[in-house]
Amino acid sequence: MTELKNDRFLRALQRQPVDVTPVWMMRQAGRYLPEYRATRARAGDFMGLCMNPELACEVTLQPLERYPLDAAILFSDILTIPDAMGLGLYFEEGEGPRFRKPVRTAADIEALPIPDPEKDLGYVMEAVKTIRRELNGRVPLIGFAGSPWTLATYMIEGGSSKDFRRAKALAFDQPELMHLLLDKLAQSVTTYLNGQILAGAQAIQIFDTWGGALSHDGYREFSLAYMQRIVSSLIREHEGRPVPVILFTKNGAPWLPEIADSGADAVGLDWTVDIGTVRKQIGDRVALQGNMDPSVLYASPARIRAEVEAILASYGSGPGHVFNLGHGITPQVDPANAGAFIEAVHELSARYHAG
Amino acid sequence: MTELKNDRFLRALQRQPVDVTPVWMMRQAGRYLPEYRATRARAGDFMGLCMNPELACEVTLQPLERYPLDAAILFSDILTIPDAMGLGLYFEEGEGPRFRKPVRTAADIEALPIPDPEKDLGYVMEAVKTIRRELNGRVPLIGFAGSPWTLATYMIEGGSSKDFRRAKALAFDQPELMHLLLDKLAQSVTTYLNGQILAGAQAIQIFDTWGGALSHDGYREFSLAYMQRIVSSLIREHEGRPVPVILFTKNGAPWLPEIADSGADAVGLDWTVDIGTVRKQIGDRVALQGNMDPSVLYASPARIRAEVEAILASYGSGPGHVFNLGHGITPQVDPANAGAFIEAVHELSARYHAG
Repeated sequence: MTELKNDRFLRALQRQPVDVTPVWMMRQAGRYLPEYRATRARAGDFMGLCMNPELACEVTLQPLERYPLDAAILFSDILTIPDAMGLGLYFEEGEGPRFRKPVRTAADIEALPIPDPEKDLGYVMEAVKTIRRELNGRVPLIGFAGSPWTLATYMIEGGSSKDFRRAKALAFDQPELMHLLLDKLAQSVTTYLNGQILAGAQAIQIFDTWGGALSHDGYREFSLAYMQRIVSSLIREHEGRPVPVILFTKNGAPWLPEIADSGADAVGLDWTVDIGTVRKQIGDRVALQGNMDPSVLYASPARIRAEVEAILASYGSGPGHVFNLGHGITPQVDPANAGAFIEAVHELSARYHAG
Repeated sequence: MTELKNDRFLRALQRQPVDVTPVWMMRQAGRYLPEYRATRARAGDFMGLCMNPELACEVTLQPLERYPLDAAILFSDILTIPDAMGLGLYFEEGEGPRFRKPVRTAADIEALPIPDPEKDLGYVMEAVKTIRRELNGRVPLIGFAGSPWTLATYMIEGGSSKDFRRAKALAFDQPELMHLLLDKLAQSVTTYLNGQILAGAQAIQIFDTWGGALSHDGYREFSLAYMQRIVSSLIREHEGRPVPVILFTKNGAPWLPEIADSGADAVGLDWTVDIGTVRKQIGDRVALQGNMDPSVLYASPARIRAEVEAILASYGSGPGHVFNLGHGITPQVDPANAGAFIEAVHELSARYHAG
């Protein structure tokens, strides 16, 4: 067990007092950083970067060299699991992720294996260990995975989609088959995340990028139910510390009370909701993570500060808030603006934690 | 004043009793219909179709020939206003709408004219008159426009956008300039919609496609405030009948109570919300329109019926519901499935209006 020099992030997730509000950014190791682009160029392509533990560690640490972030997040991709299931993940420039063998039939789904984290996703486990060693207790390391529904959409559509035509048709017309797929994915995500925890991940985030595209009832049946199942099977304490779990459904506003009852420690919020209102709604049960519009980072540092202050004021005094963007930081952002954002969170939040 | 043979739609919008729940589909005159594709091929391109009142009338009526729909909607595009302002709208195959002269500077915004409906958008007024004549009182005709915020995003970005980078940077850093643009758009939309009403539109829908991309506070400031202003300046009675107004913000779940207080008669819902819950929340003030996931139309007719029944049951007995999809019908839908949907609404809803 390493000594943790900065445990603000873990404390906030457990709604324990902190000196200032901890902050990290989804996709903080990413294309907006010139040093990331340089490492990626050395790696050849995106998956080459993910599969090389030394380079994955290098880009994970890059944003921490620039900014006083309160957490690191494993550099990887949510689609490593379907890739390990044999779907053949590749990335086409400007096209997003693609699968050589999308899942379409009952036979396809029945044939899918549950990947073994050590044997089939060893490069991720190795990356986690390498990053933990290099972090040397500076800040906690977040491990992550995609939600079963989100993974299923990519696996069925064969890539990104605007309306999830095939995935939804399967859910509507052959729900038992969709449930079989989601069940396999929930098992796979659980063992994968537990593998990350045993390798050294100190908190977990589940990214439900496309849950918000489901109908009101469909979300509970096809997305939330499987995230709940994962949460209930995760290792919740390791190295003598709790391992908090964050659930983040983009466009999840209609289901926040249900997400708060999932058993997760924290709920990620996008920027369409008022964090103060959500705190009144569910803040007695979970910590909240969010929720600045990433596009604010295109504005001036003064405007960024004003937006940070507005969110801090809305949340109000006391613990339970991890500051973040409401989605990933985008490639065109000026790194100086990301710096202004992080500085503003630490500087302006101190008074909300005084006494 | 024409006799209206089917006024279910108008009655439901005013929360008056009806025999069955009225139904129409956003984008009901569209690419999923082979007869639409044939007319569009004759017109040359999409804008050629919009600008030819006879052909616009022809495609408006096509879905009514196939299905017992309870309303017609003017065939046009939300971007006719920016086009009339001089931005040079064009469509690139598979790329969506584009503007030759996007709005970028203060000078660009200050120079924008308020289009005159008769002089600058006469082809739309002519289409409305032609359609009304050809409808001959069969069902009411819906006129429409985009919300100022939605129009502004296209005008500033020069077309579709994933993150509204330029539009949001303008709103964040030069809010007074964004407000000048939105003010001009609100004036333009108001005179345009009033022109449509005088030409014969019997109900109005304002499409706020991108309001849901704003932050919680940003939505009120940059989108809802301008829709409210439009609603308060619309002609609300014409030809001896009320002209109801529907506001539809895609991904608008976080703001439904505020939208219900806008002065509109009805609120459009996407499929992420439970219509019965929303009825309890705001159904005492407004009618509700929606809210089936358009992707359900990719499923079997039996599944479509089940989904229609679930929404009807959730809404419950009594008036105030206009059935619709939660967004436009998509090009790949089988027209037979759209027929099964409409039939199911009429057939299954009768018992919710008995007595």
